[in-house]
Amino acid sequence: MITPLPRILIEPTIRAALLEDLGRAGDITSDSVIPQTTQTRVAFIARDPGTIAGLDCAAIAFSLLDPTLTLKILFPDGSRIAPGDTIATIAGNARAILSAERVALNFLGHLSGIATATHSIARTIAHTNARITCTRKTAPNLRALQKYAVRCGGGANHRFGLDDAILIKDNHIAIAGGITTAITRARASAGHLVKIECEVDTLDQLTQALAAGADAILLDNFDIPTLRQAVTLINGTAIAEASGRITPHTAAGIAETGVNLISAGWLTHSTSVLDIGLDFMT
Amino acid sequence: MITPLPRILIEPTIRAALLEDLGRAGDITSDSVIPQTTQTRVAFIARDPGTIAGLDCAAIAFSLLDPTLTLKILFPDGSRIAPGDTIATIAGNARAILSAERVALNFLGHLSGIATATHSIARTIAHTNARITCTRKTAPNLRALQKYAVRCGGGANHRFGLDDAILIKDNHIAIAGGITTAITRARASAGHLVKIECEVDTLDQLTQALAAGADAILLDNFDIPTLRQAVTLINGTAIAEASGRITPHTAAGIAETGVNLISAGWLTHSTSVLDIGLDFMT
Amino acid sequence: MITPLPRILIEPTIRAALLEDLGRAGDITSDSVIPQTTQTRVAFIARDPGTIAGLDCAAIAFSLLDPTLTLKILFPDGSRIAPGDTIATIAGNARAILSAERVALNFLGHLSGIATATHSIARTIAHTNARITCTRKTAPNLRALQKYAVRCGGGANHRFGLDDAILIKDNHIAIAGGITTAITRARASAGHLVKIECEVDTLDQLTQALAAGADAILLDNFDIPTLRQAVTLINGTAIAEASGRITPHTAAGIAETGVNLISAGWLTHSTSVLDIGLDFMT
Amino acid sequence: MITPLPRILIEPTIRAALLEDLGRAGDITSDSVIPQTTQTRVAFIARDPGTIAGLDCAAIAFSLLDPTLTLKILFPDGSRIAPGDTIATIAGNARAILSAERVALNFLGHLSGIATATHSIARTIAHTNARITCTRKTAPNLRALQKYAVRCGGGANHRFGLDDAILIKDNHIAIAGGITTAITRARASAGHLVKIECEVDTLDQLTQALAAGADAILLDNFDIPTLRQAVTLINGTAIAEASGRITPHTAAGIAETGVNLISAGWLTHSTSVLDIGLDFMT
Amino acid sequence: MITPLPRILIEPTIRAALLEDLGRAGDITSDSVIPQTTQTRVAFIARDPGTIAGLDCAAIAFSLLDPTLTLKILFPDGSRIAPGDTIATIAGNARAILSAERVALNFLGHLSGIATATHSIARTIAHTNARITCTRKTAPNLRALQKYAVRCGGGANHRFGLDDAILIKDNHIAIAGGITTAITRARASAGHLVKIECEVDTLDQLTQALAAGADAILLDNFDIPTLRQAVTLINGTAIAEASGRITPHTAAGIAETGVNLISAGWLTHSTSVLDIGLDFMT
Amino acid sequence: MITPLPRILIEPTIRAALLEDLGRAGDITSDSVIPQTTQTRVAFIARDPGTIAGLDCAAIAFSLLDPTLTLKILFPDGSRIAPGDTIATIAGNARAILSAERVALNFLGHLSGIATATHSIARTIAHTNARITCTRKTAPNLRALQKYAVRCGGGANHRFGLDDAILIKDNHIAIAGGITTAITRARASAGHLVKIECEVDTLDQLTQALAAGADAILLDNFDIPTLRQAVTLINGTAIAEASGRITPHTAAGIAETGVNLISAGWLTHSTSVLDIGLDFMT
Repeated sequence: MITPLPRILIEPTIRAALLEDLGRAGDITSDSVIPQTTQTRVAFIARDPGTIAGLDCAAIAFSLLDPTLTLKILFPDGSRIAPGDTIATIAGNARAILSAERVALNFLGHLSGIATATHSIARTIAHTNARITCTRKTAPNLRALQKYAVRCGGGANHRFGLDDAILIKDNHIAIAGGITTAITRARASAGHLVKIECEVDTLDQLTQALAAGADAILLDNFDIPTLRQAVTLINGTAIAEASGRITPHTAAGIAETGVNLISAGWLTHSTSVLDIGLDFMT
Repeated sequence: MITPLPRILIEPTIRAALLEDLGRAGDITSDSVIPQTTQTRVAFIARDPGTIAGLDCAAIAFSLLDPTLTLKILFPDGSRIAPGDTIATIAGNARAILSAERVALNFLGHLSGIATATHSIARTIAHTNARITCTRKTAPNLRALQKYAVRCGGGANHRFGLDDAILIKDNHIAIAGGITTAITRARASAGHLVKIECEVDTLDQLTQALAAGADAILLDNFDIPTLRQAVTLINGTAIAEASGRITPHTAAGIAETGVNLISAGWLTHSTSVLDIGLDFMT
Repeated sequence: MITPLPRILIEPTIRAALLEDLGRAGDITSDSVIPQTTQTRVAFIARDPGTIAGLDCAAIAFSLLDPTLTLKILFPDGSRIAPGDTIATIAGNARAILSAERVALNFLGHLSGIATATHSIARTIAHTNARITCTRKTAPNLRALQKYAVRCGGGANHRFGLDDAILIKDNHIAIAGGITTAITRARASAGHLVKIECEVDTLDQLTQALAAGADAILLDNFDIPTLRQAVTLINGTAIAEASGRITPHTAAGIAETGVNLISAGWLTHSTSVLDIGLDFMT
Repeated sequence: MITPLPRILIEPTIRAALLEDLGRAGDITSDSVIPQTTQTRVAFIARDPGTIAGLDCAAIAFSLLDPTLTLKILFPDGSRIAPGDTIATIAGNARAILSAERVALNFLGHLSGIATATHSIARTIAHTNARITCTRKTAPNLRALQKYAVRCGGGANHRFGLDDAILIKDNHIAIAGGITTAITRARASAGHLVKIECEVDTLDQLTQALAAGADAILLDNFDIPTLRQAVTLINGTAIAEASGRITPHTAAGIAETGVNLISAGWLTHSTSVLDIGLDFMT
Repeated sequence: MITPLPRILIEPTIRAALLEDLGRAGDITSDSVIPQTTQTRVAFIARDPGTIAGLDCAAIAFSLLDPTLTLKILFPDGSRIAPGDTIATIAGNARAILSAERVALNFLGHLSGIATATHSIARTIAHTNARITCTRKTAPNLRALQKYAVRCGGGANHRFGLDDAILIKDNHIAIAGGITTAITRARASAGHLVKIECEVDTLDQLTQALAAGADAILLDNFDIPTLRQAVTLINGTAIAEASGRITPHTAAGIAETGVNLISAGWLTHSTSVLDIGLDFMT
Repeated sequence: MITPLPRILIEPTIRAALLEDLGRAGDITSDSVIPQTTQTRVAFIARDPGTIAGLDCAAIAFSLLDPTLTLKILFPDGSRIAPGDTIATIAGNARAILSAERVALNFLGHLSGIATATHSIARTIAHTNARITCTRKTAPNLRALQKYAVRCGGGANHRFGLDDAILIKDNHIAIAGGITTAITRARASAGHLVKIECEVDTLDQLTQALAAGADAILLDNFDIPTLRQAVTLINGTAIAEASGRITPHTAAGIAETGVNLISAGWLTHSTSVLDIGLDFMT
């Protein structure tokens, strides 16, 4: 079961999105066209197969507009759905439902798109010990939600920001003057619960990073034979993460090299929404 | 030339994105690995061809971290770039540059991806009178920026929210009990500077909408012969917008029917980032 | 029936107003003078005749201080009231009621003042096709509420801000170098749901604006004979708005020229509050 | 010389007002009609006589839109101006000036209206020892600015909120069961720097309030002979404040009774703006 | 009974503290270790004797994380407790309780520490007419809560900020050029409900301050014989406040000089938390 | 050299603290007593020996009130100072300096108090491999600053919140049903850069935690002989943290057992301010 994010964490983002859409005057279409007390009942229907994420966001969006609306969830976050499945239903005041619909769907479609993409990788590597993970290449101010969607799709999470782990990249190494210096400086400064990961481009760099005591290694754009060598060299003394050109077609081969993680920025920055519609219920 | 958004409008979003990334402790990697006064100079380099949008966001991100950083823009927003082009350079304190890098690139890559996608349609319909336009299917709390990116790519903007125009959709019509009722109610309520657009699924509905005095018609998922008939029926008395299955392959054919606009939600909800890297300058 | 503004839109303003009044230490008078559990019941009583607006604001103010207070509305927003009418009653904890009283009355009196002023014009032009409308000359950060009050008084709303319609004024025309240039530039840039209104000072300018395709014309300070000529010239091809020196005495004459709208900034920037008191109920 | 409010206190209100006006898309009129680099120079011109307040707000509004604009103040806050006077000039980018104009004028006109009204009373009582003061009947979230405007007009300030002094009103007295109880309870609870004022409707209540040790007395709606008796009774042992029906015609008579203060809610809740225009400079 | 602060005033601080602790990803320990539906019941147990303050903050912290949690208060704010006393119990979802525990205890321990310290002075001076009071030396952004805690401990409150009373200190006097000038200027500017307190270091300065009409005198670091002389000099014409080196050992002696107040900055800036634990209930 | 926190991270807290102190009306003492243009120059003088932290906060406080004030830092954060040392000087407008003084000193004194306390431990364990570290027992909404102060005093930082590492405490273990279950669940859920620490009360629990693969062990309230046994058992396979009764007197003995860290909540929740005064410079 997917652990939900606490409402206190996500409500501000959803509230802001509603205000962004309502503007100064509110939903002038529904307010003028639909009588004030009309009740209705609608369903979120899957148009495509995929993995669901974001129903809590949708639920909060509706409740912020009208706390008396009733949401019933049939496929909770993390569920696999097929075209035509009814994901959830929502009943109550018609104006409120239509006013919140687009914001609710924007969250639900976007996050389900990420979950679906993550699952498309996760299922191809399920036979290995590797997990698919996301990066910090996220849509501005949506990181916690996007990382939650990755979890819904069966993925793992990388750093949430610049402050919860040390990740020494090529630019840091270049300025510091070498991997050993960089890792040594990081270790001297890091708190005892902060891990250090180091990006390497070659097996030689890998050897340096291991010697300097990196907790994790980011093997950037290694081909598969070299990845295998890297895994052998690391030999369980650090976590091995492979990145670069991860697709549903390449993921299994990369995962089978024995790396612990494969990471892909596109999960959060370049996925399509999952197509979900809102239909009236008869 | 693209009209920039005023800084007062976009700075809060960029500031929030930096705080999202910095967390409570800041960039613990750069702060530990890079000496406090090291200076550097880096360039944003295009890895793929595309259209640029978001340089102001990137510039603000860097300036918020360190107002003494110097950004030089070589390809301003709206420019077409080729792989290898240097889009902009940034010089100054190395820690500050690396700390802001990811946020700056997240804005720049995301918005340039939208501009590039928009341009991919815009260039195929340049010989027609139609324009490509976006929708309200946007990433939460990024709407103004995404719509700006659409403009950078040569597109036009649809409504910015629920309150700046009336758009009567199938659900509104169903609840109101018909197109004529819906438009009549809308007109009675709307301010004199508010336009009314009505979605129609058939030529019969189109006739009703025109009779009821709609300012614009959203022709949803019409095939090309029916679009032509619709344009003939409308005959310039309302704006004609076509939506549904707009791609770089279909856009020209749809635009050639004589519609004024073709709209596509995927421009803002399902595009890939434009791949832009940050390289050291020698 | 007046369409209420959604609570999510107006609560932040009311919450801020309460915090402005409570300061750091809260209501030190009620807290020291009134026992903590004393219950009371008070009524909002009209001291003057007028039109009510802002009861939702008052209700939210009370509920934010104490969600258990019970408000009963006898004359909802938009109602005409006479001196002595009981507009609403509120019952519950005495401290909470007295602590929220001033903020509640500040909203209610101010917005009812605007509604009353609007009605003073609206009733004099009810026999014409013209409507009274407000402007952007509003009290800072109260625009949505003030425009709502105008609707409660029977008025229509003009633009809500700089971004929901184009209004080309004398200064824009002067800098652009002429009406034709200004309207042409505006049309080229405007989205398809954005109307263009142009201010004109003479019939000659009017002719230019119509030729350039303005959707609406702001006839600024025209005398009545010239207004009639303007209406004839416009002949239904654009919306005609008259502004300047609109009072309960002049409004009918201006409206009878056939204009569609008469606009008055003073409705929102220079009205008196409607005098409403809060009395104990026996 | 008027003591200005620190920018840190008032900037958030002005920033919010600009964002309220700019909405999501900014000033689509100026952005489309006026070339991006056009420079201009405009003047704030008085259309009516009055007292100026709010130039700092106007200055901040312009600077928030474009920090390179140059404002020159000719009649600082507190100055008396005559029709035709140039209050200030502003030079720089034309788009920025026109985009901020309305917000700047909304602050300047509103606050100058309050200053002008205050002055209309202050000058009639200058020969007495009384001062004119405002109340808590203010426009929501504009209290600090409105009270500043009262000072610009030569007035004094009453409480800024519920927490900076104790003001026992009729409702408090009724619930507490009498003036003596109310004042005694207040004194027991109040910090040593908190004054206690008590509203009285009769000379008998006045005697009780004085005996209970009130620091100030609000003489509500006393006629002039009774006011004189009250002043005699008080005899300098408490501050005497008269309220009710204060107008430029009645103020002198009331002030001449010897009260220390006369208070008027309408200064902040029911004044007209001072008419100030923005004209191009040749 | 202690008057509680209204929830609208304190909730933002508590909400912010929860968000500070939850970060971007929430409580990853409880979320991974504790099953989602496990229920539990815990008690706040006093480890040390003291005075309670902050139970409302704790209650709000729990309710913000999960509104279904049930808090039962056994020793309300202001109660004296002994080691082992059960202050309150909380029952419901185990994850929610453990996620909010630290924030709840941070408020409760901190504020109870202040109440306890205040009480340690208050009880030693209960036989005098003096009260113990706090200062503006408070932890940033916690002033209202800290001053509330002082009240829970039996203390009185000094100014809440720079704007609710005038306190002329040595630096003001030095720049103004003397006590008489300073007080005269202050009186001319102050509203009628604003008291003026003046710090003095000598009896000579005291004489000046009294002559200039100060409402209160801050006798800074006077020894006890001089304090007695000061009280005699003041003779009830102003409030006498003693400050400097107030401890549980010195307070009685100082209070017995006849001063009205003794003030101590350390109550709010240098107290230890009251040790309160959270134990499972069997 | 101490790495400063970026201004974007800490400015909001300092801005809020200034607004908390300025209230609605600002510094009514300085504004009335001190002429508007008076210049002055003051120095922060140490009254006690200690370690400095918070000068950036003080500098930002002054700059927010008046950006033209000039601060000169003589003893930067992390410096040891003796009574009488001039820590920094500040020159410029007298009103602005006095208005910001208290807020600046509240930050500087509070954070320097924490740094001084941390140093009082750090110096006694400098001959060991152990470091002193803080906890999450921090003043609400001041955590990042307090943890920075710990670093200034020579300490290390523990978790910044609930989301940047897993710390399994006694309550988690009790609900989970044992250490092995708890750690196993945590490992299954944690991202690859998230460390897991486990609190243990006995050597038996320690053995379980090590077997389950904890990255760090919190040895809670172990006596020194048992700590030594624990260190031997751990044997470098996990980080050893000792907590409970850490004082300047006990720290060395505990550190000499070979633990890596000793943690103390009182560093952040129960320290006294460092006494720093603000004196005029002649």
